[in-house]
Amino acid sequence: MTTISNGVNVQALLDAREALKDAPEAAQFTWKATSTWQNGVHSTTRIQNFYGLGQEQSHKNETVFDADHPAVFAAEDNGVTPIEYLLVGLASCLTAGVASVAQNRGIQLRSVEASVEGNHDIRGILGDTDVRNGYNDIKVTFHIDADATPQEIEALVAQSQKRSAVFDALTNPTDVTVSVA
Amino acid sequence: MTTISNGVNVQALLDAREALKDAPEAAQFTWKATSTWQNGVHSTTRIQNFYGLGQEQSHKNETVFDADHPAVFAAEDNGVTPIEYLLVGLASCLTAGVASVAQNRGIQLRSVEASVEGNHDIRGILGDTDVRNGYNDIKVTFHIDADATPQEIEALVAQSQKRSAVFDALTNPTDVTVSVA
Repeated sequence: MTTISNGVNVQALLDAREALKDAPEAAQFTWKATSTWQNGVHSTTRIQNFYGLGQEQSHKNETVFDADHPAVFAAEDNGVTPIEYLLVGLASCLTAGVASVAQNRGIQLRSVEASVEGNHDIRGILGDTDVRNGYNDIKVTFHIDADATPQEIEALVAQSQKRSAVFDALTNPTDVTVSVA
Repeated sequence: MTTISNGVNVQALLDAREALKDAPEAAQFTWKATSTWQNGVHSTTRIQNFYGLGQEQSHKNETVFDADHPAVFAAEDNGVTPIEYLLVGLASCLTAGVASVAQNRGIQLRSVEASVEGNHDIRGILGDTDVRNGYNDIKVTFHIDADATPQEIEALVAQSQKRSAVFDALTNPTDVTVSVA
């Protein structure tokens, strides 16, 4: 029997699932980000700290993300558009899920690529109240090379979608509260 | 009268709104991203091209985003977690909106900072079907220094939320289709 290695420590995740069954408070995570306005619609957002397993946690590095609007919106294009960040989250979440499920099922991956397209009618954000502000729909297409049948690959992707945090966050409503300090 | 300058070309946006009323097909944008699996749950996502105003468009630069899981998830922490990208999009979208609305209302901004926190019960993604996979709720808190009354600042933030693409995408459901090529 060949050893499968997709680089995912599945046993640690299965152990975590068991441990958290008896300690649900440790499973309460809070992810955090801080944005600073630069100029125009350009901002920088920093991520490093989060809360989980009952205590403050930290990524090993701080990451800084620029967001702006492109030149066709009369802006300076100093970074990707805010709504594009949702596509980054969606593609990376589903890809992480494919790798994890493949590891758990003993399927060796060779390559995984996901193309994501989000259709957006920009009349909404420009003030047309008959048009929604966000995406109309999003399509994700996977190209996967793996030691598996097409049916097994389809099942990998389906299971990834079923347990994806970002897929859920985009397909179901979340309560967002915005306030001024 | 003092000239207000937040760096937003509001006139161009107002002109675009008028122009798109008569050309709704030009308002149909498609935002795009491509993710490549690296190892484990680490992937890189590239963004450069998009479609809009009836033709292919391009950011001036390609941006590459790393996503991974942190060490507490037995991963290598080569980037922020996929679900954290949603917070980047939300904070930057609302901040861009505050700058745009302030410009339109003749309010000079001095500083805008947004802190975002997303509460997430990770038992969902670990397989507990009684717990949702995504965020339970998200809180955004603005700190704004501007030549305006507290009421005017509250109104800026409220109007930004009302026309925010990412606020809509997170608080309302979007159809997401995932397939294998």
